Amino acid sequence: MILEIAQIDVKPGMEAEFEAGVKQAAAIFKRAKGCKFMTLQRSHEMPQRYRLFVQWETLENHTKDFRESPDFHEWRKLVGHCFSTPPNVEHVIEVMRGF
Amino acid sequence: MILEIAQIDVKPGMEAEFEAGVKQAAAIFKRAKGCKFMTLQRSHEMPQRYRLFVQWETLENHTKDFRESPDFHEWRKLVGHCFSTPPNVEHVIEVMRGF
Repeated sequence: MILEIAQIDVKPGMEAEFEAGVKQAAAIFKRAKGCKFMTLQRSHEMPQRYRLFVQWETLENHTKDFRESPDFHEWRKLVGHCFSTPPNVEHVIEVMRGF
Repeated sequence: MILEIAQIDVKPGMEAEFEAGVKQAAAIFKRAKGCKFMTLQRSHEMPQRYRLFVQWETLENHTKDFRESPDFHEWRKLVGHCFSTPPNVEHVIEVMRGF
């Protein structure tokens, strides 16, 4: 299991449109191979900064299966125009669950 | 509810010591006021980069109650010497759970 963290800065004033686009996109992620959950988080310190957390079974489910699928373009069509800069994407693996 | 994301870069070769320190620190977070869970994530792309996720009931539970408590110093005593740079801390709030 691997967690994608996409840090996304949106253009000023486009926060609501971005959030609506992500909401619409939930169905896309739900049907993606190996996709286990997604959640959208908004920064308290920088309200134009979001983090999309997407849990995948394997790294390749994201980097190959999803990114090379037509659904990746559907996803970007829904939200890409809201991005102020290209998203910063990283993958993390849980090494410890404290409690 | 608010999620603290602490991005922590550790010194080369100190990964195991850092992970052991965080494991020991779990009890500190468990007894902290308003602390709901913690998990340690390691970056796939940059293996010396970790992200500590800590869920708090309120922002102040972290920024006041915890940071101004003796336990904050206990926490830093366990892991601070492993940091290569000061941690980058941000707080996020869930705006949408996709599925």
